[in-house]
Amino acid sequence: MEGDHEVISAKRLESFSDGVMAVIITLMALELRPPTGVAWSEIEHRLPNLLVYVLSFTAVAIYWVNHHHLMRVVESISGAVMWANLTLLFWLSLVPFATQWVADAYRETAPAVAYGIVAVGAAVTYYVLVRTLLRANHHDRRLVRALGVDVKGLLSVVLYLVGIGLAFISPYLTYACAAAVSTMWIVPDRRLAGRRARGGAS
Amino acid sequence: MEGDHEVISAKRLESFSDGVMAVIITLMALELRPPTGVAWSEIEHRLPNLLVYVLSFTAVAIYWVNHHHLMRVVESISGAVMWANLTLLFWLSLVPFATQWVADAYRETAPAVAYGIVAVGAAVTYYVLVRTLLRANHHDRRLVRALGVDVKGLLSVVLYLVGIGLAFISPYLTYACAAAVSTMWIVPDRRLAGRRARGGAS
Amino acid sequence: MEGDHEVISAKRLESFSDGVMAVIITLMALELRPPTGVAWSEIEHRLPNLLVYVLSFTAVAIYWVNHHHLMRVVESISGAVMWANLTLLFWLSLVPFATQWVADAYRETAPAVAYGIVAVGAAVTYYVLVRTLLRANHHDRRLVRALGVDVKGLLSVVLYLVGIGLAFISPYLTYACAAAVSTMWIVPDRRLAGRRARGGAS
Amino acid sequence: MEGDHEVISAKRLESFSDGVMAVIITLMALELRPPTGVAWSEIEHRLPNLLVYVLSFTAVAIYWVNHHHLMRVVESISGAVMWANLTLLFWLSLVPFATQWVADAYRETAPAVAYGIVAVGAAVTYYVLVRTLLRANHHDRRLVRALGVDVKGLLSVVLYLVGIGLAFISPYLTYACAAAVSTMWIVPDRRLAGRRARGGAS
Repeated sequence: MEGDHEVISAKRLESFSDGVMAVIITLMALELRPPTGVAWSEIEHRLPNLLVYVLSFTAVAIYWVNHHHLMRVVESISGAVMWANLTLLFWLSLVPFATQWVADAYRETAPAVAYGIVAVGAAVTYYVLVRTLLRANHHDRRLVRALGVDVKGLLSVVLYLVGIGLAFISPYLTYACAAAVSTMWIVPDRRLAGRRARGGAS
Repeated sequence: MEGDHEVISAKRLESFSDGVMAVIITLMALELRPPTGVAWSEIEHRLPNLLVYVLSFTAVAIYWVNHHHLMRVVESISGAVMWANLTLLFWLSLVPFATQWVADAYRETAPAVAYGIVAVGAAVTYYVLVRTLLRANHHDRRLVRALGVDVKGLLSVVLYLVGIGLAFISPYLTYACAAAVSTMWIVPDRRLAGRRARGGAS
Repeated sequence: MEGDHEVISAKRLESFSDGVMAVIITLMALELRPPTGVAWSEIEHRLPNLLVYVLSFTAVAIYWVNHHHLMRVVESISGAVMWANLTLLFWLSLVPFATQWVADAYRETAPAVAYGIVAVGAAVTYYVLVRTLLRANHHDRRLVRALGVDVKGLLSVVLYLVGIGLAFISPYLTYACAAAVSTMWIVPDRRLAGRRARGGAS
Repeated sequence: MEGDHEVISAKRLESFSDGVMAVIITLMALELRPPTGVAWSEIEHRLPNLLVYVLSFTAVAIYWVNHHHLMRVVESISGAVMWANLTLLFWLSLVPFATQWVADAYRETAPAVAYGIVAVGAAVTYYVLVRTLLRANHHDRRLVRALGVDVKGLLSVVLYLVGIGLAFISPYLTYACAAAVSTMWIVPDRRLAGRRARGGAS
């Protein structure tokens, strides 16, 4: 009873995070300014804009999916978890900014590095979020099992960091690294989903 | 118990989708820039802008209604369902972009085709979403019954595709096709609602 | 059981409407462009901008409060209710547009009339929403009682219409009418709240 | 039963406030315009922009956390509570506006004072919200205990007011005051969280 109103409710943390991520995803699409002309060449000119939007949309979508999985297995949330979560939302809220800069100047080093920094910031905070959740729920075996996926969290940080370094050779390598991280998260997810579907059918 | 935390919760999928669709609908209205002058002729000049907003608002509203009906009859959600849903949200997030381009240059072919492509993308993804939901719940008779409406899903894709082709004759035909799809979804819905109301009154 | 999945859930209707109204309220604040200069006179120049924002914020806030009261006493929602609700959201989504136009040219007739039209549109749709809810729940005595407040709904429509007419004399009279409607809704609400608090204390 | 539909539900108040705060936090990030050039000096030029965003993000995040704590211990909500809450949301909705003005002209007095006024407005309304909640739940001992934290609420108002005064010496002092308020709220929160975690572990 006592602890009940001291611990933060996972439900509200989840719904607030959902709200922020929903707005981020939609705002990025708003950055896609319609071509000023009407020629087809205009659309081609906007293609990199669209591609970086796809990249960022996918990344935020993966955070939403992972965040969702995380919150489902969690039972208690400490103040540290809450602030780790807010820091994650802070970094994610910078994604539209980085996305637009890349869209405006995708051949330059500076925007690619900025994109990489935001990606690293989000990935590191997510890792910290997982750690603080583990500390607040260390007696929970289900969560410990879910954290087996955390290797991917660390690998994401490393790949994003490599991407920042490679930006000084070519910014396209930064985007390739970001795409690799997203692929890593989506592909096994689908495989797992298939296994589950089979399990459900049996 | 086991499966309980592996399957994604329909509730959070629903609330996240609601958030994204709510933002999309409202952002589109933001694209309606107030006339720079104050003359009545300015408002007339903005009328097509307003009409395309009504068209897009209606389309997104219909997706919200259908999505809602779909989620209510669903019991289990696989990873594939989740990604199909995120892809649908991706296409819907492009609606404000397409809407604004059409608003800016509604007499041109290119924006009409872009509008059609976004419409087809959303309609196809919705069809895929229904399919993946069916696969994940194939033992559920209620869902199978709800999928009887799916003929409309296919017809929507076809009508939007025809609309893209007709854009090369006149972009107004594209908008007419989109309006036809929306009408198709709204009208029978009202009829069904009436029947239900009678049922509820008896 | 059968009817359970055919009727639309009041909960999701409510949460979607909340999302749309939350975005509308916040987007309007975004329209408040910071002064380009830094002089105090700039702030004075922006004062009408701020005042019309307060006016619109209050109006949307009142819709949120009323919508909330309405949904709490409702039991079944028909397709007609859902579309009436979506139409209300459509009109409310035009509020930021009308607000910005007034902010840009508050001394002119055209933006004042546009503001009035959006206000009438929302008020009429709200009235229709109440009617459709009554039709879908005509056996519910609690709802019928709640509809006793509906006189205010009709009076709002009349006052907004008068406001549109008066715009041709002075746009300030339109804003005064809108302010009068908001005052009418807020003041008795507080009085009722006080009575309730006393009731709760006894 | 009777009172059940007369009192406003804390849950919907909470979810609406969440929606507004989620949009505010994300919209502020949208104000971070990508540099027009690609040189590193551009990023340096944008640094104050980023810093004021961090300041505002933190402030809104703290309101979200406090609001959340407040709502969890509350049982009944009066009309006065609802309007106090809407007024708080009104002031918070002005944060992006003040943030952007400061970002544009952080060395000037006027934007710093505007930032301070918005901060005072929100802090005073939050204090009023706590008071009205206390009045509506004066028989609830848990809430009375939670209000022990209210000293911080008053101190925040004072610090923000001092910040406005100091803006006439240097605007940087205003930002320092705002940063001090945020620090005051975050630091003990973490300490409490640690104590709770220990309690939970025992």
